[in-house]
Amino acid sequence: MRHTLAVLVQNRAGVLARISGLFSRRGFNIESITVGRTELPGLSRMTIVSEADDATLEQITKQLNKLIEVVKVSDITADDFVDRELALLKVSADARNRSEILQVVEIFRGKIVDVSEKAMIIEVTGDEEKIDAFVQLTRPYGIKELVRTGKVAMVRGAKSTSEDVAQAASK
Amino acid sequence: MRHTLAVLVQNRAGVLARISGLFSRRGFNIESITVGRTELPGLSRMTIVSEADDATLEQITKQLNKLIEVVKVSDITADDFVDRELALLKVSADARNRSEILQVVEIFRGKIVDVSEKAMIIEVTGDEEKIDAFVQLTRPYGIKELVRTGKVAMVRGAKSTSEDVAQAASK
Repeated sequence: MRHTLAVLVQNRAGVLARISGLFSRRGFNIESITVGRTELPGLSRMTIVSEADDATLEQITKQLNKLIEVVKVSDITADDFVDRELALLKVSADARNRSEILQVVEIFRGKIVDVSEKAMIIEVTGDEEKIDAFVQLTRPYGIKELVRTGKVAMVRGAKSTSEDVAQAASK
Repeated sequence: MRHTLAVLVQNRAGVLARISGLFSRRGFNIESITVGRTELPGLSRMTIVSEADDATLEQITKQLNKLIEVVKVSDITADDFVDRELALLKVSADARNRSEILQVVEIFRGKIVDVSEKAMIIEVTGDEEKIDAFVQLTRPYGIKELVRTGKVAMVRGAKSTSEDVAQAASK
C-alpha cells in the first residue's frame, strides 16, 4: 500500500542524508520525497511517499522517531488529504502550433513561464495523475526537458499536523 | 555565491542517500533539493541549490561525477533560468475574512484547494521571493500549516540540459 508521511524535522545539516540513508539501508522504497521550510522557525517538513505494507511502515515510523532531528511523524494516508506537485516542461513550439499548445495549457490551468522562437516553458501543478495526463498530451509536440518537484501533501479541514508542536514551542 | 545545479541521475534506490550524504560528509551546505522524474525513462533530475564559493563548487561537481548513478551535472547558475517552487498553506479563514483572503490569492494567481468552516488550503507557485511575499501577506490571518516543495529550475530558450543524454540513449 502507498503511504504518505508528513515528517517535521529540525532544519540541520545532514538531516536529509540521515533520513534517506535510513530508507536505503533498510531497503525501504521511497517513491517521492520533498523538503521545505514550514510556518515554524527552524523546522522543515518532509513529505515522503513510500510503497510499504503496514508492518514495514510501523518499522519505518519507529526508526524515524529514533532520530533526534525528527520532531514528529504523521502518517496521513488514511486522512482526507490533498497532494500537489509542480512540473516545468520545455515543449517544442513554433508559430504554427503555439496556439494549439496554449489551448492544452489553458485546460490544465497551466502557466507559460518562457517563450522563445522554437520552445516554451510551461508550469503545471496538480496531483500525479493530472501532471501525467498533461505530459501525455504535450508529448506529441516534443518534450525537450521535464522536471518535477515531487509531492507535498496536506490534510483537508482546519486541523494542523504541526499544531501541538507549535503550541509546545510557544510555551 | 548561490549555485543552482541540475543533476541527471539514474532512478535507483539509494541515489538520494548517496548524494545528500556526499554533501553532508564534506560539510557542503544544501539550501534546497528536489528529485523528480524526467522525460527520459529511468532517469530522475535533481535540482540542488547550494551556497558555495567557486573552488568548493568545483569539488562538489567532481565528487558528484564520480558517483556511478550520476549521468550529468550542469551548473546553470550563470545561465538565464527560471526557478519555481510550490507551497500549500492552510490559513485560518471564516465567513468574515474569506473574501479578503481570496483577493490576495487572486493577486498572486494562487488556487484554492480546500475550504472548510474555519480554514482554507491555498496553492501558490512562484520563485522564492514571491512565495515569501505571499506567506508574509497571509500571516496576519493565521497560518496553521505550511509546506513547500523546494525549487526546480530550467534554462530559458530552446536548449535542453538533457539533450545530449537523450541523443546518446536513443542511439
